[in-house]
Amino acid sequence: MSNLITEIKAYLLHLQNQITQFLEKEEGVSRFKEDPWAHANGGGGLSRVLENGTHIEKAGVNFSHVLGGTLPTAATTKRPELKDSAFEALGVSTVIHPRNPFAPTTHANVRFISVQKNDGTTSWWFGGGFDLTPYYGFHEDCIYWHETAKKACDPFGQDVYSRYKKWCDEYFFLKHRNEPRGIGGLFFDDLHEWGMERSFQFMQSIGEHFIKAYQPILAKRKSHPFSEKERQFQCYRRGRYVEFNLLYDRGTLFGIQSGGRTESILMSLPPIVNWRYDYQPPENTEEARLYREFLVSRDWVPA
Amino acid sequence: MSNLITEIKAYLLHLQNQITQFLEKEEGVSRFKEDPWAHANGGGGLSRVLENGTHIEKAGVNFSHVLGGTLPTAATTKRPELKDSAFEALGVSTVIHPRNPFAPTTHANVRFISVQKNDGTTSWWFGGGFDLTPYYGFHEDCIYWHETAKKACDPFGQDVYSRYKKWCDEYFFLKHRNEPRGIGGLFFDDLHEWGMERSFQFMQSIGEHFIKAYQPILAKRKSHPFSEKERQFQCYRRGRYVEFNLLYDRGTLFGIQSGGRTESILMSLPPIVNWRYDYQPPENTEEARLYREFLVSRDWVPA
Repeated sequence: MSNLITEIKAYLLHLQNQITQFLEKEEGVSRFKEDPWAHANGGGGLSRVLENGTHIEKAGVNFSHVLGGTLPTAATTKRPELKDSAFEALGVSTVIHPRNPFAPTTHANVRFISVQKNDGTTSWWFGGGFDLTPYYGFHEDCIYWHETAKKACDPFGQDVYSRYKKWCDEYFFLKHRNEPRGIGGLFFDDLHEWGMERSFQFMQSIGEHFIKAYQPILAKRKSHPFSEKERQFQCYRRGRYVEFNLLYDRGTLFGIQSGGRTESILMSLPPIVNWRYDYQPPENTEEARLYREFLVSRDWVPA
Repeated sequence: MSNLITEIKAYLLHLQNQITQFLEKEEGVSRFKEDPWAHANGGGGLSRVLENGTHIEKAGVNFSHVLGGTLPTAATTKRPELKDSAFEALGVSTVIHPRNPFAPTTHANVRFISVQKNDGTTSWWFGGGFDLTPYYGFHEDCIYWHETAKKACDPFGQDVYSRYKKWCDEYFFLKHRNEPRGIGGLFFDDLHEWGMERSFQFMQSIGEHFIKAYQPILAKRKSHPFSEKERQFQCYRRGRYVEFNLLYDRGTLFGIQSGGRTESILMSLPPIVNWRYDYQPPENTEEARLYREFLVSRDWVPA
């Protein structure tokens, strides 16, 4: 297992470099700051954060390699047999909040978890995915995003895209709002049935296609003209992002509960957020169109 | 029980009026808007919200009377025998976010819950309290706040203030930040051992002393001169309020899980919030003093 973990770790650090490099290129002016940190129980991480850039208002690209004596409850509600097991978790997590309201927020994550069960055997799985949260919708962007997600999956089986697309729709859903977080993408977890090599290849495909999917959308939308009205709507909608991450997100709750590094976990939160009581977008506006055409479960590409 | 619930309901609506009246007086310009709503399972509420005022940036004073077929898990983790019981919950919940960073945010809540157990018996309890979250600390305000909290408790027993003050410190604590939410106040729950009449009187004392405690502090601080620097720090610190309410607050999670009215539950969230990565206030500033002198567990008045 230790050779494999070395290999996964090398890939994750490479992916972190790739993501920060394309983002710095799109940003143009500001640069990532790097923060290495150690975890109390062993392991640690390397956080990279870019704040207050010209095009990137806030982006975090976080590598972490955490060891723990007992798996936190957020990870064991569906696997009670793993309660109190020692674990090792490696991952890269990215959240990008562009400044321009026409450029969507995005999130990507890939992770590997290995658990030493009390009976001495080892259990492991991969998880991850990527999803897109627009404030103003563009059909062509959504189709391109999902086409690229499909390309990441197709070499691994005919139904992989549709299964992981559906899982993403189910996962990134705000029950208390009866509203999806965005237009979805891919989500997978507990992946072990393909065996180690193929699962690891899939993780790499997710990383590669995330960059292919997001970079052209950011490039196309980052300089779109906008006014205070669009900015206000973006800050309002960012509230949903906060609500999802703090109420539902497994990665956030896992990190908080396992005594992870708070600043690295919560670097996903947007830089400026507004809450307004009972706001409804006026009919026949672009804001209303977001809810009607984009924040709905739909198939953006033929399965 | 139904006569009693009628009486409690009348008191709660009266308290809601008292709170909105003193707030409109301090605000001066803007007025509360009222929103009656019905709950899917029966009952409903009366939300009052004031937004974007001169002195009150956002305030919510919410009365609710909710009936449910099964108690949500947020209410039964410590009382497993009540799982799946029918319940009735009445309360008034208030959150006030002043515009001026020198005026503290405050929260107050009183509630009554009655549960029909599966064996046919009824269980009931009162809960509530109030707490203060300053952005800039004033010793005299903290002492006055806690003196008034003590006066609310003293007629009910010598150790009541110190017990409920301690409970407040424990409850309003952000574990992932190792930081209290503010300077505390009072928190109580599961109150039934005093019997119905005395417990209800205590609820009324909490309501009355909340207004006595907060009104003079708001009046004194609402026009304090401030600059963009203090405003930024206020918006940053408000992030902690969001984190607490969405990660820990029992009332918020109870409401969300029981299918409550989302806009009324989340009206506690501040209007404008900032998150900055790994912000630390510079040494020897007023911002650093908040952490050092105020965001610590301490006794503001002799017990």
